[in-house]
Amino acid sequence: MSYVPPLRDIEFALNHVADLESVSKLDGLEHADPETVSGLLDEAGRFFSEVIAPLNRIGDIQGSRLEDGRVVTPDGFKEAYATFVESGWAGAHLPEEWGGGGLPYLVGIVIQELFKSANMAFSLCPMLTQGGIEALIDVGTPEQQTTYLEKLVTGKWTGTMNLTEPGAGSDVGALRTKAVPQKDGTYRIFGQKIFITWGDQDFTDNVIHLVLARTPDAPAGTRGISMFIVPRNMVDADGNPGEENDLRVVSLEHKLGIHASPTCAMSFGDGGDGAVGYLLGEEGAGMSNMFIMMNAARIGVGLEGLAIGEGAYQMALSHAIEREQGRLPGQLATDSVAIVEHPDVRRMLLTMRSYNEAMRRLLYIVAQGVDEERRSADEESRRTAGARVALLTPIVKAWCTDMGVELASIGIQVHGGMGYVEETGAAQYFRDSRIAPIYEGTNGIQAIDLVMRKIPMGNGAVVQGLFDDIATTIKTLEGHDDLNAARLNLEDGLDVLRIGTEHLLAVMEEDPNQALAGATPYLGLAGHVVGGWLMARSALAAKELIATNGDDEWLASKVTTGRFYCEQLMPTAFGLLDGVRGSNDLLFDITPELLGS
Amino acid sequence: MSYVPPLRDIEFALNHVADLESVSKLDGLEHADPETVSGLLDEAGRFFSEVIAPLNRIGDIQGSRLEDGRVVTPDGFKEAYATFVESGWAGAHLPEEWGGGGLPYLVGIVIQELFKSANMAFSLCPMLTQGGIEALIDVGTPEQQTTYLEKLVTGKWTGTMNLTEPGAGSDVGALRTKAVPQKDGTYRIFGQKIFITWGDQDFTDNVIHLVLARTPDAPAGTRGISMFIVPRNMVDADGNPGEENDLRVVSLEHKLGIHASPTCAMSFGDGGDGAVGYLLGEEGAGMSNMFIMMNAARIGVGLEGLAIGEGAYQMALSHAIEREQGRLPGQLATDSVAIVEHPDVRRMLLTMRSYNEAMRRLLYIVAQGVDEERRSADEESRRTAGARVALLTPIVKAWCTDMGVELASIGIQVHGGMGYVEETGAAQYFRDSRIAPIYEGTNGIQAIDLVMRKIPMGNGAVVQGLFDDIATTIKTLEGHDDLNAARLNLEDGLDVLRIGTEHLLAVMEEDPNQALAGATPYLGLAGHVVGGWLMARSALAAKELIATNGDDEWLASKVTTGRFYCEQLMPTAFGLLDGVRGSNDLLFDITPELLGS
Repeated sequence: MSYVPPLRDIEFALNHVADLESVSKLDGLEHADPETVSGLLDEAGRFFSEVIAPLNRIGDIQGSRLEDGRVVTPDGFKEAYATFVESGWAGAHLPEEWGGGGLPYLVGIVIQELFKSANMAFSLCPMLTQGGIEALIDVGTPEQQTTYLEKLVTGKWTGTMNLTEPGAGSDVGALRTKAVPQKDGTYRIFGQKIFITWGDQDFTDNVIHLVLARTPDAPAGTRGISMFIVPRNMVDADGNPGEENDLRVVSLEHKLGIHASPTCAMSFGDGGDGAVGYLLGEEGAGMSNMFIMMNAARIGVGLEGLAIGEGAYQMALSHAIEREQGRLPGQLATDSVAIVEHPDVRRMLLTMRSYNEAMRRLLYIVAQGVDEERRSADEESRRTAGARVALLTPIVKAWCTDMGVELASIGIQVHGGMGYVEETGAAQYFRDSRIAPIYEGTNGIQAIDLVMRKIPMGNGAVVQGLFDDIATTIKTLEGHDDLNAARLNLEDGLDVLRIGTEHLLAVMEEDPNQALAGATPYLGLAGHVVGGWLMARSALAAKELIATNGDDEWLASKVTTGRFYCEQLMPTAFGLLDGVRGSNDLLFDITPELLGS
Repeated sequence: MSYVPPLRDIEFALNHVADLESVSKLDGLEHADPETVSGLLDEAGRFFSEVIAPLNRIGDIQGSRLEDGRVVTPDGFKEAYATFVESGWAGAHLPEEWGGGGLPYLVGIVIQELFKSANMAFSLCPMLTQGGIEALIDVGTPEQQTTYLEKLVTGKWTGTMNLTEPGAGSDVGALRTKAVPQKDGTYRIFGQKIFITWGDQDFTDNVIHLVLARTPDAPAGTRGISMFIVPRNMVDADGNPGEENDLRVVSLEHKLGIHASPTCAMSFGDGGDGAVGYLLGEEGAGMSNMFIMMNAARIGVGLEGLAIGEGAYQMALSHAIEREQGRLPGQLATDSVAIVEHPDVRRMLLTMRSYNEAMRRLLYIVAQGVDEERRSADEESRRTAGARVALLTPIVKAWCTDMGVELASIGIQVHGGMGYVEETGAAQYFRDSRIAPIYEGTNGIQAIDLVMRKIPMGNGAVVQGLFDDIATTIKTLEGHDDLNAARLNLEDGLDVLRIGTEHLLAVMEEDPNQALAGATPYLGLAGHVVGGWLMARSALAAKELIATNGDDEWLASKVTTGRFYCEQLMPTAFGLLDGVRGSNDLLFDITPELLGS
């Protein structure tokens, strides 16, 4: 079976949990009214399910490979990429000024979701390109923008983020790649980079690397890092790619999953003269530029949790409907039923579906926030939206990707022994999913970001704003008898989350290690409760539509998943509070030596 | 880094949580006193870490392959297997009468743990053989025992369990392989089997298949199933293997993990005459024979959760100690520390270590129960021990294997990007671990077994006996100030588990679907709480030893892991109660068709 874009839930979440209508009233987004978007998503759904999804398995089997120093992608990828560019999906939500479609970021997220569900490894190429685009838009010179933006936005070229080095993974301050200034204002880059996603490909005639490097005499640590534009092929006066720059792909990693995505070790300046690079933004501002790229990428990676969860769910459901085995209590020994009829299997499927819905709603409200942050008419709205996006981004990245691994694992389990056989495809989701908690800042780093930087924003006012919104939803649930249990659980969830938040805010200044030690359980708790809030809103929205338009079994199913999530899934996270408040001392009671004995 | 047998924790758990001393007082086990066992485990530890562990990665890379219809194992396996047999580890805990070492099952479990941590895929071959041995001991004729047992016990031959068919996975009653009786009392077997673990190898000159098949006119369902001994090579009058039987390996599965273990599709009777088979036990008793094999195998598979968890932990710890990155609050930008010093990393490591200890203690008390069930002097003790083993077996199988996947996943996370690169080895643990929740009865089936068959045993008296033991430990914790928080949590845990149990016992007769729907969350809850009980006992035992013999930082670390487990890990399961009591109706509110829209 192949991926079917879940367009009905997508549109429901866009219009009735997030608010596409209000987004389309923002300055410059007037053409993105719900009806137009709906037609466009039909088309996108067809494209990604028909053109991109069929390449998912072949990409896994063949992988990208290195031949004579250049990346060769799996069969069919090059042709599919060309169609992707031609049909305009590459820049759908990017500025029209640079050849994009000018759609809301919210719609861009949906298109990315479709791409990632269809073929996660493939989707990383445009995702990384987008990071470079955002940096160029924000801090590029007009000349740099003219040279690169239109090519990148339309997908004619692709981009990379060159950050990690052998000795420096999450620790950017430790990196050692050198950038030597030249008299003509350019720089020469020397150094090694690893884990460069889509560091090369055979789709386009250029690849634009954004490279973090250290200028001579730059201060130690992150303040000494600058960002450079380093094209694979030098760009001539007419904007065309010419001779090769002094950089090369040294090797590709042999990875657990996302085999189609070439993860490159890169070498700059091996030729002796150094790779020609152009300073992007200010000297020493490499880190802040990188965060421009990373914030978008973090939401994009969070999306992978949902995308894999959805793909895994569809595959598992399809198997559970087809596969006959066992019987129900009371049936004859000779009877058999489809396994979807077994309560335990049904629990797995409903768990997958409900978490997927919760993730989708979370991603869409955050994406809406990005549009508001960029385009709301008044500054206060932009600021409020931006703060909410900043607060929720680490939750999106880490909670969704942790759930993605979990759901892919359940997806295998639904298949039984067949799930462990690679031909089935369930195992690929499991393997692919496992990178997402690691890259773009490990989930541990996300949790620390949430606790140490995000919940203290505005002296706790930003997180309080979220709690107020949850409390409002709890209030709205009153009087809905069928949602009573959900409401009580959401009340408990909010209580637990408040207690955890207050604990962390209280200890972090005096004893930051206590807060750091509680960060990961706190993030899991926050993700589950925020998910509960949105699933309750989803159930309420469905009931409202039914009240207006009459019975509809699909809408009724949103009430069921909302209830199931709040009644049975969300509470599984409440026990994380013990870890949030648990003593850091206990963690350090045992020395590293003793841990090994 | 390579696997180092955690002998100190193993012996502590053997002697101070389980009770090896009392096991060695059972009839026939007098030679297995703690000192002798300690010496023997030193030796076993050396063997598995030095001879078997180095083949883990090569086994993963090369995998077993099929050549001219015969399985060829990865480089080094054949030689290592020969050493394994020569050194007597194959039958260490099997009856001396058949060439075994006559050690307690409890010690056999430790040896299996070492094997599985060193090389899970390899360990499956002796594990499956052992299942066949148990069936032959229990229901084989004297002649069958003479022909096969010594060869299997010493490892000169290996055995398989031929159960699954293309149309029948967990549903044994649906299988269709035929056994046609012959005038000489033998049978001819015709049919296809799939997922046959180590269905062939190049280690030994014979493989003994135990095959489930249906005799003509047998009743439908499981009562029509019989078990047959089907040797790969016919055994001549002198007991030597001769001409080939009419069976063959058709193909090997391409799996997510355990690549060294050949998972065979087998065909019996392709040659036309049928494979010669000998009825094992009574006609129609195939299922009960299979459960003899399976019960041992279920404990062995549960062990894989621990074994993978331990291997993954050691690898992650080693990386965390070596890898320098980032700095602690207050350090300079130019400083860097080993990542083991970061609270979030330390949390991951202590989580892995504590769960591993909990699983090890659970496995060992169950293994002790198996020895008592077999050898206690009075029938009442045998019966009580047997009932406790029966109750805990599904928890061992399912909880430990779910935790194994979880810990292997954390192991990758500790490594960051390196964890996703196959060369590191962390990814292999993750891939290998994922089969264990599936085979030997999926974890969903274990949960149903626990709820529908095990907790009702003796009208609830068996599970009540467990609760009484937990309550006794809670009582013992009183007066230990440092274990106060652990005690309070264990009290909560017991309450939650009681509530869940009572709910299930109350609903199961009237509405079995309600109980079936709560089975999986109940098993997770039970596993966590039983783990807490044993980790509390472990902490108490360590404190007692310190009180007697003076301070010891290693023993003090058992108090820390006991506290960490009870204070911060166990409570994460309490929220599963909502799933246990959650309405089954909610699961079935959405039709399969709607689930797909």
